[in-house]
Amino acid sequence: MKRGIFSIGIIGGAGGMGRWFADFFRRAGYPVVTTGRTHGPDFASLAAACPVVVVSVPMAVTEEVIGKIGPCLPRESLLMDLTSLKEGPVQAMLAASVSEVIGLHPLFGPGVSSLSGQNIAVCPARGDSWLPWLKEILEKNGARLVETTPARHDEVMAVVQALNHFLAAVLGRAIAAAGIAPEELRDFSTPVFRNRLDHLQRLLSHPDLYAHLIAHNPYGKSAIISNICHLEDLLAPVREGDAAALEDRLRALREASPSLQPHPRE
Amino acid sequence: MKRGIFSIGIIGGAGGMGRWFADFFRRAGYPVVTTGRTHGPDFASLAAACPVVVVSVPMAVTEEVIGKIGPCLPRESLLMDLTSLKEGPVQAMLAASVSEVIGLHPLFGPGVSSLSGQNIAVCPARGDSWLPWLKEILEKNGARLVETTPARHDEVMAVVQALNHFLAAVLGRAIAAAGIAPEELRDFSTPVFRNRLDHLQRLLSHPDLYAHLIAHNPYGKSAIISNICHLEDLLAPVREGDAAALEDRLRALREASPSLQPHPRE
Repeated sequence: MKRGIFSIGIIGGAGGMGRWFADFFRRAGYPVVTTGRTHGPDFASLAAACPVVVVSVPMAVTEEVIGKIGPCLPRESLLMDLTSLKEGPVQAMLAASVSEVIGLHPLFGPGVSSLSGQNIAVCPARGDSWLPWLKEILEKNGARLVETTPARHDEVMAVVQALNHFLAAVLGRAIAAAGIAPEELRDFSTPVFRNRLDHLQRLLSHPDLYAHLIAHNPYGKSAIISNICHLEDLLAPVREGDAAALEDRLRALREASPSLQPHPRE
Repeated sequence: MKRGIFSIGIIGGAGGMGRWFADFFRRAGYPVVTTGRTHGPDFASLAAACPVVVVSVPMAVTEEVIGKIGPCLPRESLLMDLTSLKEGPVQAMLAASVSEVIGLHPLFGPGVSSLSGQNIAVCPARGDSWLPWLKEILEKNGARLVETTPARHDEVMAVVQALNHFLAAVLGRAIAAAGIAPEELRDFSTPVFRNRLDHLQRLLSHPDLYAHLIAHNPYGKSAIISNICHLEDLLAPVREGDAAALEDRLRALREASPSLQPHPRE
């Protein structure tokens, strides 16, 4: 369906990814209406003015906000969210609305300057008249889209986010326990470690967000517990100071998954 | 002491960091003689021709090679190594030689194009006539030097390298266990995760080197075991799906060390 220009409503459009997408849609020529706790129209007015509504509020209140905006939207509108988990929010959007529903997870933070080369997970959930418009505007600006289900998204994110962030917290705990001062950490850091420290500091700057990503991913608990509590294959060589045995385990690991090959085909 | 131009010998100068420093010293105007298993002069000839000798061979044979070159060097020469651990190699250099001894650990890989902004750990161990020359040539080219003891170096590296690499291996193990294919991993990756995956793939490309860094760091076993096996404070909230409790733990972690503050003073 060919569409003209219409208004886009963003709930939580004043911060983080909400603001980022408000700027993005404005640059693309769309009027954007944002609402927050202290500004903007009420949900009924927003829904009446905007055929596309995007929910971008802290994860802890996402489903509550979806429950309020969902009933305001007519069948022909589009409801989307930008949350980093997809099962809960997409279920909530389907339950609260009769509108079309697409769950989005932009796999980048608000610090990037354009969509070029950035990944976005797209979970179409109800209706198909809005999907071509959405894909076109995102891809035209350089995004790489992956269409997936909320379940598979959250399963992969259990490793890419929940476990990865959890392991960063473990490293942070070790830095604190070892009493390594900031100057010393800087003096002894490698490029790889500086990347990890940047990640860790971002994590610790937003403990609410990351705690949610780790503890509320439906597959995160299993990914973390199973990989942290059953580590004997890697721990035994460390305990015994046996570099040759550890080397064998690392080689076996490399062979265990094509994702771990040194030069993955692009 | 003002020094003119003299030859620098590099044992293992054909690969990795040995080749990198061979190029570096040549660009700085010094004749460089390299030896390897299949080329170059014998150790006695190398020691006779080169007042500075650098050992840059795989970690597993570093102390053996030091045991052979050390006795060839006169008191006024300088023996150095580039190994990523310092206690063992520095002790070996002191035991095998009467020469001056400095342990070096360049905290970067052979992929960097210049010393500019890169950290190098320097462990002066015997003599002081060569240290000013070494510091000058490294600092003039932009390196940031940290003078330290082998023990403190290895203690900090137990976190920066041994634990950090171990945690990357844990993530790799989870990727293999979850059966995430390379295309899927690429489609779902964030910038933070791509950094981590680069690290992991480098690690798995050199399992011998990284197994050594993890299993042979004298403080690594303790850093890994104590931080992996006593994780209940972080694991309990995950097990219970309690994001609020995990958020509290992350906040406490941030307060536990100035190194984990979001914006460390430069």
